[in-house]
Amino acid sequence: MSSTFGTHFRITTWGESHGTGVGVVIDGCPPRIPLTREMIQQELNRRRPGQSDIVTPRKEEDAVEILSGVLDDLTLGTPIALSVRNKDHRSSAYDEMQHTYRPSHADYCYDAKYGIRAWAGGGRASARETIGRVAAGAVARAVVQALFPGVEIISWVEQVHGIACPVPPEEVSAAVVESNIVRTADGNTAERMAAAIREARSSGDSLGGVVACTIRHCPVGLGDPVFDKLEATLAHAMMSIPACKGFEVGSGFAAAQLRGSEHNDSYYMEGERVRTRTNRSGGIQGGISNGEAINMRLAFKPTATLMLAQPTVNDRHQEVELRGKGRHDACVLPRAVPVVEAMAWLTICDHLLHQRALTGC
Amino acid sequence: MSSTFGTHFRITTWGESHGTGVGVVIDGCPPRIPLTREMIQQELNRRRPGQSDIVTPRKEEDAVEILSGVLDDLTLGTPIALSVRNKDHRSSAYDEMQHTYRPSHADYCYDAKYGIRAWAGGGRASARETIGRVAAGAVARAVVQALFPGVEIISWVEQVHGIACPVPPEEVSAAVVESNIVRTADGNTAERMAAAIREARSSGDSLGGVVACTIRHCPVGLGDPVFDKLEATLAHAMMSIPACKGFEVGSGFAAAQLRGSEHNDSYYMEGERVRTRTNRSGGIQGGISNGEAINMRLAFKPTATLMLAQPTVNDRHQEVELRGKGRHDACVLPRAVPVVEAMAWLTICDHLLHQRALTGC
Amino acid sequence: MSSTFGTHFRITTWGESHGTGVGVVIDGCPPRIPLTREMIQQELNRRRPGQSDIVTPRKEEDAVEILSGVLDDLTLGTPIALSVRNKDHRSSAYDEMQHTYRPSHADYCYDAKYGIRAWAGGGRASARETIGRVAAGAVARAVVQALFPGVEIISWVEQVHGIACPVPPEEVSAAVVESNIVRTADGNTAERMAAAIREARSSGDSLGGVVACTIRHCPVGLGDPVFDKLEATLAHAMMSIPACKGFEVGSGFAAAQLRGSEHNDSYYMEGERVRTRTNRSGGIQGGISNGEAINMRLAFKPTATLMLAQPTVNDRHQEVELRGKGRHDACVLPRAVPVVEAMAWLTICDHLLHQRALTGC
Amino acid sequence: MSSTFGTHFRITTWGESHGTGVGVVIDGCPPRIPLTREMIQQELNRRRPGQSDIVTPRKEEDAVEILSGVLDDLTLGTPIALSVRNKDHRSSAYDEMQHTYRPSHADYCYDAKYGIRAWAGGGRASARETIGRVAAGAVARAVVQALFPGVEIISWVEQVHGIACPVPPEEVSAAVVESNIVRTADGNTAERMAAAIREARSSGDSLGGVVACTIRHCPVGLGDPVFDKLEATLAHAMMSIPACKGFEVGSGFAAAQLRGSEHNDSYYMEGERVRTRTNRSGGIQGGISNGEAINMRLAFKPTATLMLAQPTVNDRHQEVELRGKGRHDACVLPRAVPVVEAMAWLTICDHLLHQRALTGC
Repeated sequence: MSSTFGTHFRITTWGESHGTGVGVVIDGCPPRIPLTREMIQQELNRRRPGQSDIVTPRKEEDAVEILSGVLDDLTLGTPIALSVRNKDHRSSAYDEMQHTYRPSHADYCYDAKYGIRAWAGGGRASARETIGRVAAGAVARAVVQALFPGVEIISWVEQVHGIACPVPPEEVSAAVVESNIVRTADGNTAERMAAAIREARSSGDSLGGVVACTIRHCPVGLGDPVFDKLEATLAHAMMSIPACKGFEVGSGFAAAQLRGSEHNDSYYMEGERVRTRTNRSGGIQGGISNGEAINMRLAFKPTATLMLAQPTVNDRHQEVELRGKGRHDACVLPRAVPVVEAMAWLTICDHLLHQRALTGC
Repeated sequence: MSSTFGTHFRITTWGESHGTGVGVVIDGCPPRIPLTREMIQQELNRRRPGQSDIVTPRKEEDAVEILSGVLDDLTLGTPIALSVRNKDHRSSAYDEMQHTYRPSHADYCYDAKYGIRAWAGGGRASARETIGRVAAGAVARAVVQALFPGVEIISWVEQVHGIACPVPPEEVSAAVVESNIVRTADGNTAERMAAAIREARSSGDSLGGVVACTIRHCPVGLGDPVFDKLEATLAHAMMSIPACKGFEVGSGFAAAQLRGSEHNDSYYMEGERVRTRTNRSGGIQGGISNGEAINMRLAFKPTATLMLAQPTVNDRHQEVELRGKGRHDACVLPRAVPVVEAMAWLTICDHLLHQRALTGC
Repeated sequence: MSSTFGTHFRITTWGESHGTGVGVVIDGCPPRIPLTREMIQQELNRRRPGQSDIVTPRKEEDAVEILSGVLDDLTLGTPIALSVRNKDHRSSAYDEMQHTYRPSHADYCYDAKYGIRAWAGGGRASARETIGRVAAGAVARAVVQALFPGVEIISWVEQVHGIACPVPPEEVSAAVVESNIVRTADGNTAERMAAAIREARSSGDSLGGVVACTIRHCPVGLGDPVFDKLEATLAHAMMSIPACKGFEVGSGFAAAQLRGSEHNDSYYMEGERVRTRTNRSGGIQGGISNGEAINMRLAFKPTATLMLAQPTVNDRHQEVELRGKGRHDACVLPRAVPVVEAMAWLTICDHLLHQRALTGC
Repeated sequence: MSSTFGTHFRITTWGESHGTGVGVVIDGCPPRIPLTREMIQQELNRRRPGQSDIVTPRKEEDAVEILSGVLDDLTLGTPIALSVRNKDHRSSAYDEMQHTYRPSHADYCYDAKYGIRAWAGGGRASARETIGRVAAGAVARAVVQALFPGVEIISWVEQVHGIACPVPPEEVSAAVVESNIVRTADGNTAERMAAAIREARSSGDSLGGVVACTIRHCPVGLGDPVFDKLEATLAHAMMSIPACKGFEVGSGFAAAQLRGSEHNDSYYMEGERVRTRTNRSGGIQGGISNGEAINMRLAFKPTATLMLAQPTVNDRHQEVELRGKGRHDACVLPRAVPVVEAMAWLTICDHLLHQRALTGC
């Protein structure tokens, strides 16, 4: 169902960019999980516009309100409703969008599908929609960490246009990622990436890139063959993020160029624990987590809104020219990082509860 | 839910490799759709082992039986149950698998997750599981083509190890793909790929590769933001196929290296039809089909079963050595092609019915 | 899933009695359906406390806010979020409830199930939860009436304790029902019922009764055998309403005492329309609507909160005595009527969309 | 979704009366549950035609085959497919049904809904469809009893036409119920009921009645407010059984005639266990099991097929006369008993797994 994600830990997000607000309802959250407003707000702050000079300068506080499902900082087991009011409306910046289809945006397709469109600010297709994901992801994180304290999920910007971050997944530190405005895993690379983003913005252009994500200490046994294999639901989660064009796990597309004798991960015993010497499987075998780090990479296209003139058509089917207005990210990746983490927490949480239903684990 | 796929056109597959058989139940199929046993069998024949000298020589007829839901070659609107009996059991070839975990296979993870495992032939983790997908996909295809006669889905092997097929998606012909045993889009490339597969097999090794898929003449408006965007459900579908490690749509990972001014697809009018001059979006914008060809690429890892000695562990947690037995594909791609097409038909069919519920389209 | 109802027109309600508010999110609502805030508020006003002297005197405005999914009084096809802020908190009246289990209430079971409980005002188990149902029901009604203008749903109080309303379903008028504070189908009966309710309240006691509901001009063909037969999903919907203890359709429990020759409904032709001479089937045959009126009856138990001393236990497992406080309905039926109608609209709407997916009807 | 029931323990039934066979696939069954073919066959034998002189004399062995999901009498955690081949086809007895609508049957509605109908023997609307329910119910029972050994579900015929069984739910013995062909709870009553059924059959007529069901030793805490309250999902389950016209739990419709002071169940302590002195709640409060017996009653209409001439219409919309042929039950209740039990096991099992997901219970 369109705006609902998950089977056991099921979230439904709502809200248009320039409407009253945006939010999410979580149905199926276990009871007695410690949860404060701050735990949610902290993640929203990482996604918020205006947090640095390389992201959109829009001013949104994005203050979350917990409307239900929590009492005295504990979840009740009943639906948790979270809402964020919209503040910074400048619909006039979007007037032209009412009838003109922005290239590589959702405008035309929304009109074609629904026959109606909340045109101001992109409506439901705005990146503002991801607020509900990030808020719900913070709750999923609280659940997973309450049930399995060691699980850790870190996402970072691995590549911006031609600049790649050289740090391998197992060496990435959350502290380093949060210490630079690009959210990459290495300080020097961060500066080069930030410079590239500033250059693109100043030319009215934008840049694509790659976000990586690693899930550490994931319990063995998550993932539900044959259709809800762990990599399949992770792919579903990630490919639903605005601007995401590709997903790979473990060896990914590099696997295509390998022989089996090069690709297979050998098992060995590390004390009582079954481990693999390499991790081309990316922590998932047969659709089920094997206890190694789950490593993913996501391709993001460059922001579609440009401050350059572009040919396009309008809703009267006339060919016209459009030049972007409004305040946009010249590169979505730094703000995509908390969204990617949120989707990973939501997916892991859902599988954990399924595994508990199935085996009582 | 594990073995169920789809919301409106919902399939549930069942069956282990060396059990009584495998099959699928389809719930939600529209009534009065023309459907014959031959339409299903024909697709199963494309997936069948033993169809050429570069696939596993196992002998399986894979004859499908329609158990319910069809009367006089028309669907009834009630559940369609399809089943295929298993024939070629050689469990002795798998005796060693009962206690030893094959590297990069599902054995260890199934044991860890379920605490029990149908070890012969890989059980539920066997590629034999995909029979239910292909059978259901043939029904989905019948539905889609009855409702929207022009829709066409073609999948082909685009790369085997280092050998890539040079034909762009818009020039691929289904007839050419079916005319060569590799199922690639070019005859000369097919011979080189087949030679590489034979070489790998003779060395007891295996090869990875890339399968491409294009959906032509897809109706505008399919895909359900924000979580069931068309690319997200396609990614879910494809990443659930055994051995699939990566998925991309349109520009995919190449988008990471582009600027927005290079990546955006300009709209123009072709008569009354809104079209894009380029197709880096891959036929999907904002999660919704825009009428252009939907182009995808899937990375497949090399077959994990090798006829080479490999270090591993057993279920008593001892380190041992294993050499593959049984009859396996040295490259899964030629037989993966009909599976990829089936998953695409299933996904499109589900979205079509959802769109019909939502708008009466 | 606990707080989610429906498959295609899917609602998720949230909110505790004495929390910030209550509300609902609707996912799957068709686009371009006329919908105003007033259409929703009008139904909430029928459910609101304090509307007459025979219902609870609590003062709640129950003003609804449309947070998303609607633009210029038309639905967008995106999730519709509706919320009502709580106003009249008097938690002190409920202090005793924090540790003492009210007889025939949900207190003990919530503690046993969740290990935590929003005790003030009954939390999620409060009748206040039904606000989300009524609000969503108003949207469902707008959808059904936009697609099939003639459909009409009327619910009324058919019995209060020993007093039954003599009007048969086909003669019930919505205007009469709304013209009396009991919401029964006959003015004289209304006065006797109101008197009985006042008498019960003055003795600190409460009364049970029966609510009837008829769906007129329902399209033929709704209902989805074998598990989502129309009567089965209606039963699910109705039995989920607080205090509902029984459900019957058509002849209901009276069928048990009949012979087939007395019970069968003969078909005949009325012009081009297939009709039945009697309607013991209650408008549903084989789980599918046949075009006759769908007639249901629901048994409601007397309100559990009494102003009388009752023996019970507390959460320390001590036997104690409890006397109800707070402001409660001595008979829930007059305010249950809009809830029953809402659940009927939601159910019919969901089946309509399913039928559209299945047959394009 | 039409032929799918349950969220966690999810079954999909398939099959028409006179097709190849009928069956069910169970997705979500926990692994390592002891399960033999005999455990399933035994329940099917209780449902089978021809088991006594008061049920239809059709000869059907109804031999079940386990096609997947079970190894060495243990469930694998993968889908369990069960099938029963149809044997006793006498389609000629149904020739007239091809174009004539049997009164109070599903024929007309299936034609109206689907535009096509498997007319022989009623197709999907045949009581034969319940085989899948009973088979899956046996698996659900195995799961529930493996996880909570004490749970017991007994169903019995409480009333046939005017004859009621005087045994209260708490005194009903499964052994007595199975010792008489009517499946009532008292030997003398059984003889009178059997005589009434024989009399009805000899006059070509049929009888309605009431089936009761009790769930003993159900764990406290099952049921998921606000929509999947235990009584709501039980009502859904039961009202989906062919010929069921009404459902009540605990006091049911009798509650309508009571005052709160008469209806409330007082809590008291029985050692460490919270209990109620009376059980008008029927073991469920606030939608959640409270540990007392869950008592339900279901109204069944008299069999619609009569050996008497009845006026009706045909599919060319002509008014015609029809006299039933074929071999039918003059009273469905004795064979409905195992179906009611199966639906109760399925519902309890689904809630148990949900509770395990939610709380790890």
